[in-house]
Amino acid sequence: MALLIRNTNLVTHETILKDHWLLCNKGRIEDYGPMDSCPDVDNAIDAENMHILPGAIELHIHGANGVDAMDADMEYLEKISAHLPSTGSTAFLATTMTAPFADIERALINLSDYKYTSGAKLLGIHLEGPFISTGHPGAQDPSHIAIPDAEALRHLQDLSGDRIRLVTYAPEEDEGAFLEALLALGIVPSAGHTDATYDTLKKAQDNGLSHITHLYNGMRGLHHREPGVVGFSYLEQPYVEIIVDGIHSRPEMVKLAYETITPERLILITDAMRAQGLPDGEYDLGGQAVHVSGNEARLSDGTLAGSVLTMQQAISNMRDFTGCSWPDIVRMTAYNPAVELGLTDTKGIIRQGADADLVIYDEASNLKHTIINGEKVF
Amino acid sequence: MALLIRNTNLVTHETILKDHWLLCNKGRIEDYGPMDSCPDVDNAIDAENMHILPGAIELHIHGANGVDAMDADMEYLEKISAHLPSTGSTAFLATTMTAPFADIERALINLSDYKYTSGAKLLGIHLEGPFISTGHPGAQDPSHIAIPDAEALRHLQDLSGDRIRLVTYAPEEDEGAFLEALLALGIVPSAGHTDATYDTLKKAQDNGLSHITHLYNGMRGLHHREPGVVGFSYLEQPYVEIIVDGIHSRPEMVKLAYETITPERLILITDAMRAQGLPDGEYDLGGQAVHVSGNEARLSDGTLAGSVLTMQQAISNMRDFTGCSWPDIVRMTAYNPAVELGLTDTKGIIRQGADADLVIYDEASNLKHTIINGEKVF
Repeated sequence: MALLIRNTNLVTHETILKDHWLLCNKGRIEDYGPMDSCPDVDNAIDAENMHILPGAIELHIHGANGVDAMDADMEYLEKISAHLPSTGSTAFLATTMTAPFADIERALINLSDYKYTSGAKLLGIHLEGPFISTGHPGAQDPSHIAIPDAEALRHLQDLSGDRIRLVTYAPEEDEGAFLEALLALGIVPSAGHTDATYDTLKKAQDNGLSHITHLYNGMRGLHHREPGVVGFSYLEQPYVEIIVDGIHSRPEMVKLAYETITPERLILITDAMRAQGLPDGEYDLGGQAVHVSGNEARLSDGTLAGSVLTMQQAISNMRDFTGCSWPDIVRMTAYNPAVELGLTDTKGIIRQGADADLVIYDEASNLKHTIINGEKVF
Repeated sequence: MALLIRNTNLVTHETILKDHWLLCNKGRIEDYGPMDSCPDVDNAIDAENMHILPGAIELHIHGANGVDAMDADMEYLEKISAHLPSTGSTAFLATTMTAPFADIERALINLSDYKYTSGAKLLGIHLEGPFISTGHPGAQDPSHIAIPDAEALRHLQDLSGDRIRLVTYAPEEDEGAFLEALLALGIVPSAGHTDATYDTLKKAQDNGLSHITHLYNGMRGLHHREPGVVGFSYLEQPYVEIIVDGIHSRPEMVKLAYETITPERLILITDAMRAQGLPDGEYDLGGQAVHVSGNEARLSDGTLAGSVLTMQQAISNMRDFTGCSWPDIVRMTAYNPAVELGLTDTKGIIRQGADADLVIYDEASNLKHTIINGEKVF
């Protein structure tokens, strides 16, 4: 059934079209235009001059609502797909963790069986580890970290049914064969949990490295004689993930990233773990015990262990910390991820024929509605 | 005698006026205009389409040509004033160091006697230490570091004949009285050799702190949960000194400072010590032995100890590292320092009536002529 949204501001990655209507039909955006030419459709939402945006595409999320990609069961996909629309996300990459190799294999096999039913859409897998640096494990279990291995990667991609779309790895541990394999497999290479120097990253960038995993966290910092991963991100502007919860980095440092890397290249992620959407307490993350209190998830030694951030809260924080525009938000949550995944024909974009996966926000950054395949699901 | 410069590009802090003439008379810029209205004057330089800029004002230079401000003798002023025009500088602040209090007093008394004769002009004194952090001494002797003391400052300013114009100090060691005293004495407060946090610096900025001493060196660095002095400089854009020798910080980090702080706020300094312009060998800096080799001056433990950089080389490096414009160079070497010292009526600027202290560079950043008080001195 067609769905009309009336009296809305259409936010694209480039501009805001005020006082518009948008018509969804057969799961797609059929058309849109200014209110003075609004069609008459029975099934309609009056957006009361709120903003409609392409739904967020989460490139880095481990879990939420009690489940985690490493659980390796179908309950994971059911619960996370059902939950994410209430947080403003309409698609995601299931993100695995450093763990015993057999556990990673099980998680990938589980995901290889995925067939879409409802809720947020699985667009693929983000393999975070095990091919990272023992020097920057963060909350990844260091005992299972492995040297980047092209053969192992091909094996994992095979098990996943070619669903791995992004891999976080440590470029300084790779002599080049791993990066080559990533590109050959159509996977986005991302430097993260890494001690790489600026020169190592520049060389990797020349060879196809295009993405940085959670800026500031799990990496070599900035020094005036070694710019490191942070300096590389500021200066060379790959696509750069950032966790905007005000805990993983200070608001001022988010603003600095916004000013240097710009919304053309920043990508908001949540890095959420299974406690997102649940009360404070003890949870498991990749086999490690995590204590969740308020907005913080930490290992027993105090190490930050993912987040309980939602995409809606990330958007609200980003607007508060930087004063960014709504088109900037579209870039950082939907358009840039879609560009990286090669999906801008249908995702992360407002255009005729694109998927009708949309979110409606008020000016105060409250999520009002989520629409998937042209149907209101939240 | 009047001096005409023909066929030159006048570089101001805002623009380049191509194919112009400029007439100096009685030590001042009398007039300038396009070549089709060029006056006929006997005493003339054909600039062959090279660039004429206001001469550099060095805010941070300890010594050169064998002498140091801490020598506390008149030979210092004679030799440095005679030498600096050959490096592209026409004015400077004599910069003292952390040392026994009596030695600082002697240096200031010596400078209080200054009367201009010829060469580069002493515009005042930069007191670098002793009111700094023991945590970031650099090549300042830590045994003579003192807590910021407003009474001691007033005493020193008195001894100097009110010539102290800029003081490098550690804001985290000051409860507020020292900053207040600096401002009351008409001195530019500069945070340097400091462990100050972002919050401490923000508070000091609200109270009048306006300058940062040699960005990156002798300070707390950038961290994603504590932006420190580096993050403060990027984000809040005080006036910021930087040593562009490619050794004190990497070219990429100079570029990052250029992009974040912008030429509106950056100031090129040399931080040169007595070996500038002399061969490699052993030298003294504030009572500490310094080994000079090539472009590097270091203490026996490897700590960088000032530089042997010239302003001409700093300009050449800055253009190489950033691709900045000539007007940017004027801002970073002459106009910004003049703004901070409250001297833009006559210095750091090309306008009728301004001091005829000028430098002529070719496009390859070679210094061709230096003019002081309307006379060619180099």
